[in-house]
Amino acid sequence: MNERKLTVFQPREKVGLIVVLTGNGKGKTTAALGIALRAAGHNMKVCLIEFVKGDMYSGEIDGLKRLLPDIELHITGKGFFRKTDNPRIYEEHRSRAQEAVDLAKEKMFSGAFDILILDEINNAVALKLVDVTQVIELIEKKPPLMHLIITGREAHPEVIKRAHTVTEMQEIKHAYQQGIEPQQGIDY
Amino acid sequence: MNERKLTVFQPREKVGLIVVLTGNGKGKTTAALGIALRAAGHNMKVCLIEFVKGDMYSGEIDGLKRLLPDIELHITGKGFFRKTDNPRIYEEHRSRAQEAVDLAKEKMFSGAFDILILDEINNAVALKLVDVTQVIELIEKKPPLMHLIITGREAHPEVIKRAHTVTEMQEIKHAYQQGIEPQQGIDY
Repeated sequence: MNERKLTVFQPREKVGLIVVLTGNGKGKTTAALGIALRAAGHNMKVCLIEFVKGDMYSGEIDGLKRLLPDIELHITGKGFFRKTDNPRIYEEHRSRAQEAVDLAKEKMFSGAFDILILDEINNAVALKLVDVTQVIELIEKKPPLMHLIITGREAHPEVIKRAHTVTEMQEIKHAYQQGIEPQQGIDY
Repeated sequence: MNERKLTVFQPREKVGLIVVLTGNGKGKTTAALGIALRAAGHNMKVCLIEFVKGDMYSGEIDGLKRLLPDIELHITGKGFFRKTDNPRIYEEHRSRAQEAVDLAKEKMFSGAFDILILDEINNAVALKLVDVTQVIELIEKKPPLMHLIITGREAHPEVIKRAHTVTEMQEIKHAYQQGIEPQQGIDY
């Protein structure tokens, strides 16, 4: 690590930001991890709740452990879910996603965190596992100085409307289109 | 950290990917940091070279130290640069960016890294501090299993053409448009 002389910026006013990372391209969860890493560099406290995650191991689980004690990771939900006609399966997934919303509320108001990341909650809304009104409630009740990061495809317009910063990650191309399977360090 | 039983994926064929993160939206460098974090979780070795960075402190400098010894960070270049008519200033910046390209080559062929991140090298190309032929040479000579991550606005079409995965991060909105200054943990 080489270093050079750097200036430390301080905003005149501190603002807790609502940041939305959406779109169909690669980089949404990855950027949320980058936010956690950067924040840990400031010793800020980050809670990352992963909604609707699959059952595959990803390096971030052990990578985030390197940021302890500044990070708390919760992998929630009942794993991968696609729209289904089976009401029993839907209700199981919805019930688990609702538990994750309760967890998000608890962490938001615990006073223990500077940043709360709701990873792929947009997908949970699109799949009707979480209601958009629940996300709006989290946004509106957020402690003023807490940053709230909301990721996932198909961010709801009502969520975008309430955010300070929104990036849409557009897929220009992806390795899977060239018949390449997921690769360690990039895809998981 | 709660955990659940997860499957570890292994691709039948390992491929070193070229990933380009471009566009005018927030999240390019941040996603590159997320890649480093995820890779560190696999104990993969990452070299991150920051081209054309400004002189402001950012939390990633200390965040990345948490990933030692799996990460090597080099902040290169002569700081912030805008297109200028002053040939002396241009030559100074170009000379420093060229040293960074030499460093990238050295790290690429050192055998010490699984992932090489050339952060904001696209900007350096757009500013004519680095030639696109130099980036193409790095892409084409890359060790087969090394992942090469190329970030920055205005990725050159010849770079996009040679990449496996390209995400364009589009700014839908940004807090600065609402008169909000950069905030710790999000912007730096």
